[in-house]
Amino acid sequence: MQAHPINRFIFAFAILIALPLSASTPIPNSTSVHQWDIFELTLPGPTPTNPFADVSLSAKFTSGDSSSTANGFYDGGGQYKIRFMPPTIGQWHYQTQSNLPDLTNKSGDFTCEKPSPENHGPVRVRNTYHFAYADGTPYKPIGTTSYGWVFQPDPFEDHMLATLKSSPFNKIRMLVFPLRYGENPDKPTLFPYEKKSDGTWDYSRFDPKFFQHLEKRIADLRDLGIQADVILFHPYGRDDLRFDRMDPADDDRYLHYIVARLSAYRNVWWSLANEFDLIRSKKTADWDRMFQLIQNEDPSNHLRSIHFSRYTYDPTHPWVTHMSVQNGMAVADFGRATWLRDICPKPVVFDEVRYEGNIEARWGQLTGEEMTERFWFGTIAGTYVGHGEVLGDHAGHSWGSTGGDLRGESPARIAFLKKILDTAPPEGVEPLDRYFETHIAGKAGEYYLIYFGPEKPAEWPFELYKDAVSDGMKFKADILDTWNMTITPVDQTFTLKRHNQYTFRDQNDAKIPLPGKPWIALRIQRVPDAK
Amino acid sequence: MQAHPINRFIFAFAILIALPLSASTPIPNSTSVHQWDIFELTLPGPTPTNPFADVSLSAKFTSGDSSSTANGFYDGGGQYKIRFMPPTIGQWHYQTQSNLPDLTNKSGDFTCEKPSPENHGPVRVRNTYHFAYADGTPYKPIGTTSYGWVFQPDPFEDHMLATLKSSPFNKIRMLVFPLRYGENPDKPTLFPYEKKSDGTWDYSRFDPKFFQHLEKRIADLRDLGIQADVILFHPYGRDDLRFDRMDPADDDRYLHYIVARLSAYRNVWWSLANEFDLIRSKKTADWDRMFQLIQNEDPSNHLRSIHFSRYTYDPTHPWVTHMSVQNGMAVADFGRATWLRDICPKPVVFDEVRYEGNIEARWGQLTGEEMTERFWFGTIAGTYVGHGEVLGDHAGHSWGSTGGDLRGESPARIAFLKKILDTAPPEGVEPLDRYFETHIAGKAGEYYLIYFGPEKPAEWPFELYKDAVSDGMKFKADILDTWNMTITPVDQTFTLKRHNQYTFRDQNDAKIPLPGKPWIALRIQRVPDAK
Repeated sequence: MQAHPINRFIFAFAILIALPLSASTPIPNSTSVHQWDIFELTLPGPTPTNPFADVSLSAKFTSGDSSSTANGFYDGGGQYKIRFMPPTIGQWHYQTQSNLPDLTNKSGDFTCEKPSPENHGPVRVRNTYHFAYADGTPYKPIGTTSYGWVFQPDPFEDHMLATLKSSPFNKIRMLVFPLRYGENPDKPTLFPYEKKSDGTWDYSRFDPKFFQHLEKRIADLRDLGIQADVILFHPYGRDDLRFDRMDPADDDRYLHYIVARLSAYRNVWWSLANEFDLIRSKKTADWDRMFQLIQNEDPSNHLRSIHFSRYTYDPTHPWVTHMSVQNGMAVADFGRATWLRDICPKPVVFDEVRYEGNIEARWGQLTGEEMTERFWFGTIAGTYVGHGEVLGDHAGHSWGSTGGDLRGESPARIAFLKKILDTAPPEGVEPLDRYFETHIAGKAGEYYLIYFGPEKPAEWPFELYKDAVSDGMKFKADILDTWNMTITPVDQTFTLKRHNQYTFRDQNDAKIPLPGKPWIALRIQRVPDAK
Repeated sequence: MQAHPINRFIFAFAILIALPLSASTPIPNSTSVHQWDIFELTLPGPTPTNPFADVSLSAKFTSGDSSSTANGFYDGGGQYKIRFMPPTIGQWHYQTQSNLPDLTNKSGDFTCEKPSPENHGPVRVRNTYHFAYADGTPYKPIGTTSYGWVFQPDPFEDHMLATLKSSPFNKIRMLVFPLRYGENPDKPTLFPYEKKSDGTWDYSRFDPKFFQHLEKRIADLRDLGIQADVILFHPYGRDDLRFDRMDPADDDRYLHYIVARLSAYRNVWWSLANEFDLIRSKKTADWDRMFQLIQNEDPSNHLRSIHFSRYTYDPTHPWVTHMSVQNGMAVADFGRATWLRDICPKPVVFDEVRYEGNIEARWGQLTGEEMTERFWFGTIAGTYVGHGEVLGDHAGHSWGSTGGDLRGESPARIAFLKKILDTAPPEGVEPLDRYFETHIAGKAGEYYLIYFGPEKPAEWPFELYKDAVSDGMKFKADILDTWNMTITPVDQTFTLKRHNQYTFRDQNDAKIPLPGKPWIALRIQRVPDAK
């Protein structure tokens, strides 16, 4: 049996005996935590009739001039907890507030130390359409989706993590509320709420064990360097669960609780919903309110988005950090995906572009080649693409529903793209000369990716748009076979000469011979001037 | 010489002698005006040092429970005017307000009568992505651009109107401030401002003759059924004009003046700017302020947009009624243009998609076939496309700069498309099944346009997406050759039968033979059931 994950990440753990009331009760256990790791304070306390609903608890965390407030939560067994992800190195002080005398005015200090090398902090938007970790390290999402992987038996989930570890994926979309079982071979053993005596769910009483398990898996993902794109609502529940049809007060209590529990995990992203517009019980104003609740209550300010079916939620709201798009067409050809960027200057993540699969539903019939193409079409449009797979086994498992094994042909090719992007400009690949060109992205004057998709050109005349280039600049080139995963350097240096008012060409009008196959790309990189 | 247009449209004209102050001075001349025509009140008055800057004048117009305020303006020669486009039939009362005693508290009544048959009122947004006149008549923009046509000699402008009359165009983009003369063979004789003794322009003193001429041409367009998309600012002026670099106070005075003059013309659309992002002197906050000024001061609430070069102004602002897009790529293939609709639920008008032309600049090199294709690609994406042409004559005239003659091959084909759209569903053509299909638009169950662009299919299996259709429904089809402008009815009726979970086919799996040429479309229309 695995150790409970939280045990591995507690850097401060203070068991308090109920003390007489005072203005501020110092907590003796002062300790240290790494930047962007979890500081967790545990306070035993009385349990009124419903400790989930009747107890307010928070702590103000202060370091120098900055302060944040994190809400606490009841974790069962008479234990209350407050978690906090310290954003800066240095001394921190905290003090609790509660409507229970036993929990209020507890205070203490801790030191926040330099993070370990693999810890880059939470992911933020950077350079308008792109992302980076808080420490500045580029983060280029290569996402996948496995809605129900945390509702499986432990050995299955452990196997899933092993699969993820050897995959290219650095983000996974996953549900909090269980999928309907029909899509889920094994009935979940844990549910987010307690059941009432009449068999219905008590939306005012959470089951901490459910959330402890969820947290364990989010921590496992974090340790693999994978962002958990946590989907808070979805329309795929069983009718007897009805978690998509709770009252606004229940929705808000749930969000308050899960934000308190998860916001200190640095790899959490908030996805308000999957196919939000299919959740008929909620209106736009509900989504507005819930987005703002999360924005207000998450002291770590994790990324926030919402995924749609037919109708787009207005992504220009300040509480939406990036677009989470479902669409099978926008990244299926040249020159499409980039339009979403024009209306809303935020990153565009195509989280669902249909699935590599062999099922009857037409959204689950992409070939590996088509899925791979979508990643490249999205990349050269300055956007990011997510993978999906529905290639089921005899037991009804498939990657998209339950996780387990990857069976498709695209993941290896997506890993190849990831390798390319890992050495691409850290600020992100931008479409270049895009009012006239749809094949070229990169960073003008430095780095170009030219993708030919299904076209089969026999050669490419070396020609670059005028932005940021000049006569005499030198470039090298590699031929990328995006399907066969080969990088073939071109044994030549190209020297620019002005061709016309728009472009520069190689001074000898050199052309790069190409293999005449589909899914070829070119990578062009500046060769620094000799000293 | 043409009659001054205003003479033809004045339905109320009251010359007032300065009367002693009273709480409200009734104006005896009560008359009538047609709905959506121009009620104009002329008040002689004193002229302080600068009647453009020092006089405030407005009138409140009341009919039943509704009221609107229209600002007045100084029209030269000691005359002040207030214009109003009555939006409803019935009795109207007005009363003026001014800081000049001679102009304030003038009141009167008039009757607003049923409009003449060709008068459908101003154009409004209808059905989210589409337009209609105020009386409900569909309006489907088929626009063109002639930036400087109102700065030409009168006979040239009259010829331009004759060309427009026989063209398909029902909207024209046109500048208020003159183009730099280098793009304009004949130097303008009128300018919007008075010149100061030092040769610079006095931005606080307008030249009413300039605006009277502009109004005459807007009225001429109106009488041809053409919307005037009036571009209020642009970056193409001469350095000695500097109308794009005025102070905010001057900008606001200009907008106040032109809104007072033009807002009663029912065919006016406000285009805040052409390539607004190239007007370096103004910031986003300036555009926000100016949009809101127009929104507040235009009692007729005309359509408002802004046209961009590289950077999009946020179209989700409530003061933007529709998107005015410049782009050469978004309507150059299947499946692109529709994405703009997803982020912002407003009509998308591609006002500039490059030009049919033969000039060196690459934006002016479209063939007639390419321009025609763009109209069709835009149409089946649920958007609207505008035409442009730069095929110059020896004198330096070209349609895009000065107007005159149309020389391209696309206008006739655009007229053919207009003929098709005139009998298409009045609520607008919508992309259908658009997450899987990029070729089909229309109205599910009733009307389908299937455009093949450059593809050359030899046949089309009769197959429709499941929305709004059922077994046994009957359809007829026409083959449209969008380049050769022919409509060929298919001599067969097609009867639907469920094919799979997504589509219906003809019950006999009928296929429509196609000519194997590019630019073919199909029109599929429901055949009503026999009684």
